[in-house]
Amino acid sequence: MRLAELSESSGVPIPTIKYYLREQLLPPGRRITATQAEYDDSHLRRLRLVRALIQVGRVPVATAREVLAAVDDDSLGRTIRLGAALWALPQPPEAPEDDPATAEAASTVDRLLDELGWDTAREIGSLSPSYRTLVTTVATLNRLGYPCGTPELTPYARHMERVAEHDIDRLDTIPEEVEKVEIAVAAAILYEPVLLMLHRLAQEEHSARRFGL
Amino acid sequence: MRLAELSESSGVPIPTIKYYLREQLLPPGRRITATQAEYDDSHLRRLRLVRALIQVGRVPVATAREVLAAVDDDSLGRTIRLGAALWALPQPPEAPEDDPATAEAASTVDRLLDELGWDTAREIGSLSPSYRTLVTTVATLNRLGYPCGTPELTPYARHMERVAEHDIDRLDTIPEEVEKVEIAVAAAILYEPVLLMLHRLAQEEHSARRFGL
Repeated sequence: MRLAELSESSGVPIPTIKYYLREQLLPPGRRITATQAEYDDSHLRRLRLVRALIQVGRVPVATAREVLAAVDDDSLGRTIRLGAALWALPQPPEAPEDDPATAEAASTVDRLLDELGWDTAREIGSLSPSYRTLVTTVATLNRLGYPCGTPELTPYARHMERVAEHDIDRLDTIPEEVEKVEIAVAAAILYEPVLLMLHRLAQEEHSARRFGL
Repeated sequence: MRLAELSESSGVPIPTIKYYLREQLLPPGRRITATQAEYDDSHLRRLRLVRALIQVGRVPVATAREVLAAVDDDSLGRTIRLGAALWALPQPPEAPEDDPATAEAASTVDRLLDELGWDTAREIGSLSPSYRTLVTTVATLNRLGYPCGTPELTPYARHMERVAEHDIDRLDTIPEEVEKVEIAVAAAILYEPVLLMLHRLAQEEHSARRFGL
């Protein structure tokens, strides 16, 4: 398809597409004349992902470029490739390492991962921003006096494990490798708010059922 | 306990506690001399919640005051009281109402709630910021070309229902009414990041198991 069609199919204005091309967020089309290029479905998909990153995820352009480089790096295994993409996203601030509450929270999380048998998560450990953010949050909860140890965390982890299995089953239905990684990155940005809002609605529903309005 | 003890038990410096007292985020202690007041466990609990709202939730002082007013309003039923408290928290921006994608997303969410039998959620509908944010997010996903209809949403909603039931079971073990509402508000701010991070760690784990690193 031509640029005009790409713009129409994606709902992204032509000047914005040209900007993404200049910033190398979108690979160039196949040149057919001196002034025209041909785009395909991979451009349309990539355009969606760029919109998701920049519009919804509010990711800076330089960071988006880094995320997309990881998505495209087929020398890496899928988990590492996905990890590299997701880990390039902006992360919440981390706790100082020498804080005793942080050290205690880290051993709580390690014990949790052992009990769950999440061996890879255990092995990757503090390399993963998800691990480090979990540790920081557990430390904050405990510091504020809200109990958050392995017994409190385990049932939530088990539920989230079922959600993650469902995520990965869905991913398995997508044939192409680069598309799998793209969808996984988009899902991380776009589906998390869906999960949270479903959680809050379910809380409102069950609170009303249990306690009345 | 005296102010110094309250500060020590909570880890909140005395000048900060005095500021919270002046801003009416913390109810005054029982005056025992012209210059001294006595505080109890309810002050300690409230202090934790104020810290959670302001430090972790980054809620402005005026909003925190509004949230706490709802927590303390025992003329309301528990679900409404909790709703009033949570709904006073800062919410993500909403989509314009006259947008056709938003209208379509609203009917997707309505159909979802019907299928789930979440009757209260359906009845409260767009009064709830959780409902409105879900609609906005579903509209964004569809606009970007990521399918997000009732079939995609239902399994996630079922999982989140189990999480919410667990939340409410935990709440049921807390004896005092005002404490229940306080804990529920703190949990909404503090446990959501825990859920998200457990979800990401579970994804990393199961991606590695399914696809290798």
